[in-house]
Amino acid sequence: MPDQTSPPAVSLAEIREILKRLPGPDLEAGSAAEARQRDLLKPPGSLGRLEELAVWLATWQGRSSPRVERPHVAVFAGSHGVASRDVSAYPAEVTQQMVGAFVNGLAAVNQLAAEVDADLRVYEMALELATGDITQGPAMTQEDAAHAMAYGMMAIEEGLDVVALGEMGIGNTTAAAALACGLFGGAPEDWVGPGTGVDAEGIRRKTQAVAAALEANAASLSDPLECLAALGGRELAAIAGAVLACRAARIPVVLDGYACSVAAAVLYKADPRALDHCLVAHRSAEPGHTRLLEAIRQRPLLDLDLRLGEGSGAVLALSLLKSACAVHNGMATFAEAGVSDKAT
Amino acid sequence: MPDQTSPPAVSLAEIREILKRLPGPDLEAGSAAEARQRDLLKPPGSLGRLEELAVWLATWQGRSSPRVERPHVAVFAGSHGVASRDVSAYPAEVTQQMVGAFVNGLAAVNQLAAEVDADLRVYEMALELATGDITQGPAMTQEDAAHAMAYGMMAIEEGLDVVALGEMGIGNTTAAAALACGLFGGAPEDWVGPGTGVDAEGIRRKTQAVAAALEANAASLSDPLECLAALGGRELAAIAGAVLACRAARIPVVLDGYACSVAAAVLYKADPRALDHCLVAHRSAEPGHTRLLEAIRQRPLLDLDLRLGEGSGAVLALSLLKSACAVHNGMATFAEAGVSDKAT
Repeated sequence: MPDQTSPPAVSLAEIREILKRLPGPDLEAGSAAEARQRDLLKPPGSLGRLEELAVWLATWQGRSSPRVERPHVAVFAGSHGVASRDVSAYPAEVTQQMVGAFVNGLAAVNQLAAEVDADLRVYEMALELATGDITQGPAMTQEDAAHAMAYGMMAIEEGLDVVALGEMGIGNTTAAAALACGLFGGAPEDWVGPGTGVDAEGIRRKTQAVAAALEANAASLSDPLECLAALGGRELAAIAGAVLACRAARIPVVLDGYACSVAAAVLYKADPRALDHCLVAHRSAEPGHTRLLEAIRQRPLLDLDLRLGEGSGAVLALSLLKSACAVHNGMATFAEAGVSDKAT
Repeated sequence: MPDQTSPPAVSLAEIREILKRLPGPDLEAGSAAEARQRDLLKPPGSLGRLEELAVWLATWQGRSSPRVERPHVAVFAGSHGVASRDVSAYPAEVTQQMVGAFVNGLAAVNQLAAEVDADLRVYEMALELATGDITQGPAMTQEDAAHAMAYGMMAIEEGLDVVALGEMGIGNTTAAAALACGLFGGAPEDWVGPGTGVDAEGIRRKTQAVAAALEANAASLSDPLECLAALGGRELAAIAGAVLACRAARIPVVLDGYACSVAAAVLYKADPRALDHCLVAHRSAEPGHTRLLEAIRQRPLLDLDLRLGEGSGAVLALSLLKSACAVHNGMATFAEAGVSDKAT
């Protein structure tokens, strides 16, 4: 499953150009889907967010009958220099070991993907070469960040019906907290949480690391993409790239929890419309996620105290999308069923 | 799909005896499941409620490896005398028409059940004979209520892995509001909402109907089962019966939204342990549901603004149960995967 193909060279300037040419929604397909929802055999609006999901899928897939038949799950894995700062409950080598577990079908996301008949691919991003320690300087050069974004773009093929994104990277909730703080402000402690399960002392170390990272990279905080390069990681940059590629290819995106949402939030900060084709799957138990969801104006689909990452929450939410499509496409209308419609 | 078999005669006194002999949880199976969750290849607790679901299923199925392979969906339909009080956005004949739609696979719950490979059965309960108008007197005699509970019990076969319950009955959010108010107190307006989508004037009519029903049935409010007979409906009594039968047969239960949860709450009021084998699938958009969830100490799995009934939310939540089982049974442990465990 690991993909070693080298992506074509791309610069952050080119990515800025892509951000200026984001395709908009297909309002005609969305309106047709809305009209069908109104005719279906149920009180209008009574299926709540399932109705919204069907219309959202139609709008971004550009077809009035949305479908989620073979969802694609892309999990990006990266190594973080900041992992050496004792910010995780697990040693840094776990990132590489977990990639092995994904490839061998042993992890949570494998079981969840099988349940929704999703195609799971894991993308290793130079795991042997950790990014720079953000407490000392930038994680990546701008060239490296652009390269990682291009790698994420390459993971997206035309014609997919929906893409679920996730990440793996020991240390990456610290990088994500620094990146979120750099993008949206606030204090480091607003964005730091237990991650894989560190104790109060570990949270203190993470908070200090975030504060140091913001100081060491102060010159990069005014631009979202530079912020991503300075404070993020390769898997986070790849997620941002994949989100952009999905937009261009008319593929709706389901984002996983904290680290994944922060990666996508880089694009929101550059242009708030950039995530209109994305939904956040769930509210993570990581406390900073709730703050982030407010910042990027997303209401998550699930709230199940998940905090695993590896795309697990995004894949879990795919079953809701499939159900939304089943209802939208399979139900009869009042007229077809011969049922008396509302008296009004 | 409608089942016309007559249930054996049973009295409310016999049901009270059943309530005194509720089987308890299988703590050994639950502990074994918890132990396995701790060994699985993820930070402990990081799958949140998915972990809890697996342990809950194990505890009530009485097996350390829970399974949800062929869930059973039982939707009970009943006719309400109070429907003549103009309390719904739809005419009373829609109850019978919707049963036809269920049988022909045309409704929302049919599509949702197919998505999770669930076996859906619909039970018509003397639809041609509406219950008494609760604003004038009791909905049912105690004998009729016991008969309807027995009917619900008969819908449950031994050996099912999980049962999802739902209801259909024009006027039954009014009956449910009266029943909830009778069981848990408060004012009628605390429990009344738009249901299928009535306007402010309709909500006023519903509130008046609930107030009148409580006055007309004041003598029956002190006992939960008498309250069910006086203010409920046949499909609500059947749900309470099905919940009891599942307990006896070690079958975990997933309850749908407002009317279904109120029906089950009758048993909670009789004995708070009576719903330990039940989970509420979702928080309904019907405002009284949140108050009810607090009263019966349930945290719903989903919060998607659903307010359709017909078991739709319960069936939707089955995919979470299936995913919880897939993770529990399919994941490797740290040792099996050769991944470094937590440093501590």
